[in-house]
Amino acid sequence: MKKKKFKIALAQIKIEQKNIEENCKKIFEKIEEAAKENVDIICFPELATIGYTITTDELKKLPEDFNNAFIEKLQEKAKFFKIHLLVGYLESKTTKKSRDFYNSCIFIDDDGKILANARKVYLWKREKTKFKAGNKFVVKNTKFGKIGILLCYDLEFPEPARIECLKGAEIIFVPSLWSFNAENRWHIDLAANSLFNLLFIAGCNAVGDSCCGKSKIVEPDGSTLIEASGTNEELLMATIDLEKVSEIRAKIPYLTDLKK
Amino acid sequence: MKKKKFKIALAQIKIEQKNIEENCKKIFEKIEEAAKENVDIICFPELATIGYTITTDELKKLPEDFNNAFIEKLQEKAKFFKIHLLVGYLESKTTKKSRDFYNSCIFIDDDGKILANARKVYLWKREKTKFKAGNKFVVKNTKFGKIGILLCYDLEFPEPARIECLKGAEIIFVPSLWSFNAENRWHIDLAANSLFNLLFIAGCNAVGDSCCGKSKIVEPDGSTLIEASGTNEELLMATIDLEKVSEIRAKIPYLTDLKK
Repeated sequence: MKKKKFKIALAQIKIEQKNIEENCKKIFEKIEEAAKENVDIICFPELATIGYTITTDELKKLPEDFNNAFIEKLQEKAKFFKIHLLVGYLESKTTKKSRDFYNSCIFIDDDGKILANARKVYLWKREKTKFKAGNKFVVKNTKFGKIGILLCYDLEFPEPARIECLKGAEIIFVPSLWSFNAENRWHIDLAANSLFNLLFIAGCNAVGDSCCGKSKIVEPDGSTLIEASGTNEELLMATIDLEKVSEIRAKIPYLTDLKK
Repeated sequence: MKKKKFKIALAQIKIEQKNIEENCKKIFEKIEEAAKENVDIICFPELATIGYTITTDELKKLPEDFNNAFIEKLQEKAKFFKIHLLVGYLESKTTKKSRDFYNSCIFIDDDGKILANARKVYLWKREKTKFKAGNKFVVKNTKFGKIGILLCYDLEFPEPARIECLKGAEIIFVPSLWSFNAENRWHIDLAANSLFNLLFIAGCNAVGDSCCGKSKIVEPDGSTLIEASGTNEELLMATIDLEKVSEIRAKIPYLTDLKK
């Protein structure tokens, strides 16, 4: 049965550049902390396992199975703590032809099942030289309604959130590494994509390095429900009431008026 | 030759409901006032000739040629004062089959030539019972670069501004009658459509009745260049420098990255 009310947490953490062990430890700790607060879904920033300064040469030196134990442990934690997880991470995928890296988000349910692996579609500048781009905007049906995923720069285009809205998304999580330089865009993009599509957006950013924090949850009318600081690690928590999506859609007729 | 720098004015006026004579008089006065300030382009709110409370029955009673003298006079003023005009007005169009009304914006150049007649595509709620919808998003090439037009509710969807951007628009004028109830949307929509498309947007609203004023010009990065009050009639003026469009597009690669 669909749960219309649930508690989410955005883990606004500082990511240690290239220190996978330390970052994974912190991720597991935050999952436990959120579980103690009865959180139903926790989201982490983009590339939460490794940060963004890793070079192409360093990528190639990573062992092929470097993520396996981490993802299995995430599945165990999700099941043990009965919590849904969205974790931005570095994905390595070896095919017959090549070894590719993706800027991805793994989505695991509270049974420990992998619901989705969303790959960033829009790669920002030099990311294009390191990662292969994803080719779809992921929306998964869960007991908390239809949940969409976008990664950071994907939010800077109106099309991805619109596509996820038309696929039925009621809330979109956005694992990000957003810089101080672009903070004005963070606020505009979260508000606009929420409002245009009349859905919740939960943007989880990091702090430290050049990241601007300000993780936040935006309501389906573009207003801010809750926002984190720009500098501190925080577990930002709020209760989402999906009835608000229906209520606001009944008042503002964008989706019935939209010419397709 | 294309003028990269030019002065625009948004005439944030109070519109007298159904008092066409009074409104047209005010429009002519504002054109003269702007011309004295060396304005190159002046924009008026949506339905600036008549307001928005007119009923379907009242519409039908309007003489078929009720706009002719007004539009001719606009053309004369444009030529006399060497100024481009964008005026939101009630359009009546009689065809063999029917008499139709549109919520339109006439665009006249400083030779008095009609460059475009843009019809509102997205009709808000009860407008659907009064007006026929337009079916294209207008962009015209002028000596001030490519100028787009959207009418009020057209701005509440990301698609229209995106379409105009892809047609080459560098500045979009938005004649509006925007209400206090929806003021948060006004700010989000102007900023978002500017930022997503990296172009100027000039939103001209009315004051009085339930209109929230706050006419404003937004820069190609979503930041506000200048904003009017929420309650007073104002001729809001600013110099637009189209170099900013190129500069910001060089920094933020949305349009080269966009997957079409």
